[in-house]
Amino acid sequence: MNTVRDVDPTDNVMLVEAGATLQSIQAAAEEAGRLFPLSLASEGTCQIGGNLATNAGGVNVLRYGSTRALCLGVEAVLPNGNILNNLSRLRKDNTGYDLRDLLIGSEGTLGVITAATLALSARPADVGTALFTVRDPAAALDLLTLARSIAGDGISAFELIHGVGLDFVAETIPEARQPFSERPEWAVLVEVGLPDAVSAEQCLTDLFEQGLGAGLTDDGVIAQSDGQRAEFWTLREQIPEANKRIGAIVSHDIALPLGQLADFIPRGMARIAEIGPFRVNCFGHLGDGNLHYNVFPPLGKPPGAFAADKDRIERAVHDLVRDMGGSFSAEHGVGRFKTHELDRYGDPVKISTMRTLKSALDPHGIMNPGALFS
Amino acid sequence: MNTVRDVDPTDNVMLVEAGATLQSIQAAAEEAGRLFPLSLASEGTCQIGGNLATNAGGVNVLRYGSTRALCLGVEAVLPNGNILNNLSRLRKDNTGYDLRDLLIGSEGTLGVITAATLALSARPADVGTALFTVRDPAAALDLLTLARSIAGDGISAFELIHGVGLDFVAETIPEARQPFSERPEWAVLVEVGLPDAVSAEQCLTDLFEQGLGAGLTDDGVIAQSDGQRAEFWTLREQIPEANKRIGAIVSHDIALPLGQLADFIPRGMARIAEIGPFRVNCFGHLGDGNLHYNVFPPLGKPPGAFAADKDRIERAVHDLVRDMGGSFSAEHGVGRFKTHELDRYGDPVKISTMRTLKSALDPHGIMNPGALFS
Repeated sequence: MNTVRDVDPTDNVMLVEAGATLQSIQAAAEEAGRLFPLSLASEGTCQIGGNLATNAGGVNVLRYGSTRALCLGVEAVLPNGNILNNLSRLRKDNTGYDLRDLLIGSEGTLGVITAATLALSARPADVGTALFTVRDPAAALDLLTLARSIAGDGISAFELIHGVGLDFVAETIPEARQPFSERPEWAVLVEVGLPDAVSAEQCLTDLFEQGLGAGLTDDGVIAQSDGQRAEFWTLREQIPEANKRIGAIVSHDIALPLGQLADFIPRGMARIAEIGPFRVNCFGHLGDGNLHYNVFPPLGKPPGAFAADKDRIERAVHDLVRDMGGSFSAEHGVGRFKTHELDRYGDPVKISTMRTLKSALDPHGIMNPGALFS
Repeated sequence: MNTVRDVDPTDNVMLVEAGATLQSIQAAAEEAGRLFPLSLASEGTCQIGGNLATNAGGVNVLRYGSTRALCLGVEAVLPNGNILNNLSRLRKDNTGYDLRDLLIGSEGTLGVITAATLALSARPADVGTALFTVRDPAAALDLLTLARSIAGDGISAFELIHGVGLDFVAETIPEARQPFSERPEWAVLVEVGLPDAVSAEQCLTDLFEQGLGAGLTDDGVIAQSDGQRAEFWTLREQIPEANKRIGAIVSHDIALPLGQLADFIPRGMARIAEIGPFRVNCFGHLGDGNLHYNVFPPLGKPPGAFAADKDRIERAVHDLVRDMGGSFSAEHGVGRFKTHELDRYGDPVKISTMRTLKSALDPHGIMNPGALFS
């Protein structure tokens, strides 16, 4: 039952089976003149049930929140075989514990989500996308503040791009088009979606001019067509693809408070440099504090040659993340690979409370055993 | 410790003690050039700890969500005496169960929230407020759809006002200013908050002209000053005050799917009319489907004279709400007075799961006994 069951543009709600792909949901929303704003690289194949179970993030969290924020209700099979029937279409409902949010992000350990009601948004009348070079991550954050003063909450995406990532793309995807004549050390991809009366292009032009004046950026391209907008996003998506082709020693999916983020990036690199002459590609969803901070072997060396350094690198990065008030898993969850990280960095009271809840709802441990808990 | 501890305009986050009043939080956000958008009639005295425990709603839920959507993390004392330390400043953090949302809206039955991190929003550059008459609730919903097509997600409030409510205000608060020369059967209060490049007044003028052309409204006033905006909100707040002075037989805080709401209002009134010649004042947060649907004695009679009809009226209203996919408690919670309603209308699997969680976390039932569970 891989289907969108119902789209209601009056309620701005959609009822979907867990097996519906994200892309099919986006398409059904668009057909109804609405927007389902969850957007991830895997949207062609990932299913909403998985997006909900992992509280998936992606590029529009800055504006619209993670999957959790887009879900009004769930239907789920609980460990005892009971079916929770909570396919609410309501925006407001204060009648007891928030079981929906307990299930969302629980990675299948408390039940299996089988269907959901999703909140739709208005489609912005005008969407604009631009790439701007930035001096450094601090300048990127200042540009974000400037963008907010110009476009309010109309900023849909604010992605950090690292020169190392552009090098990786040039190295492994030679047909890829590089947007800047000179390869910058840092750049950002900015997308705005605005109501009818505001021109997205004008807004991005204002941002560039003010950013130029403030010394935050010195080069920029504003997409002149939907085709060019798509090209910019293609470049953004080629970065993780190039990462794969190069082969990371270890990847980190971290979140920092925005106020710590610009400091974190060089401090993390300095700690990694103490371990070895590694390359770091630091990119991601800057606007919501989520960085993919991935560590690669020196040019020409295979990642396998540095397997022995993996744990040390991960510890250096995640220790610093903890010290700066961040999270070792922003959007990818805990799964089986990061249970030891949850043990190490999680609040002990949080972990013991999680175990209490797990034992109460799934006393025989039949739901996704091995995930979340070591 | 009734304080705002820290406001961080870079992270758009504020750290507050549970005892901070909502008004002090709004003021601290404003001082930092930001917006904390939770807004309720009791904001001068209510405390954020209570707002979180009850997942309070108010007039801006349409745009910004309930309290739940505005909270990034909580500190709480759990029934076993442990302190959950989850004062996250992060927008993205997928590291285990969402204990924050389990505590929010649990009405103090699972723990006591002692502090919280709150998300701040950008202050809209231009805010505009208007009152429009509408033919009926269906026209109000059509006007909301029109407003969305004009202002996108810039609509901050969309409140339904009933002619009966205006009568009550005229009757009990004679000094109140009535905005329309002829008392309408229905009206809406619309507020928009928009970025710099858009004029809120122009947007409301467009809405009025298009609404007039479509036969949805035939009279309107657009506030020309902050003073006039405040006056419109005063009128909105005088309605519950007038209700108190008249004295309700029974009040309902219900939510309906928007697509059912226009049908519900007259159907509910017809069911109440079968019980007696009562007056209904139906008003509230139309934009998020939340109605305060309050039932009053006939003119000149005291509410006490109809105490015997209370249960029958409540049953008639809440049965119809259930049949139309709604909730018997949109924003006021369950507390002690509505535990029987939760038993009657709640999904049995939801209730049994709630009991399992309550027993696991609070086996001795020491946290707010009598609330939520009958």
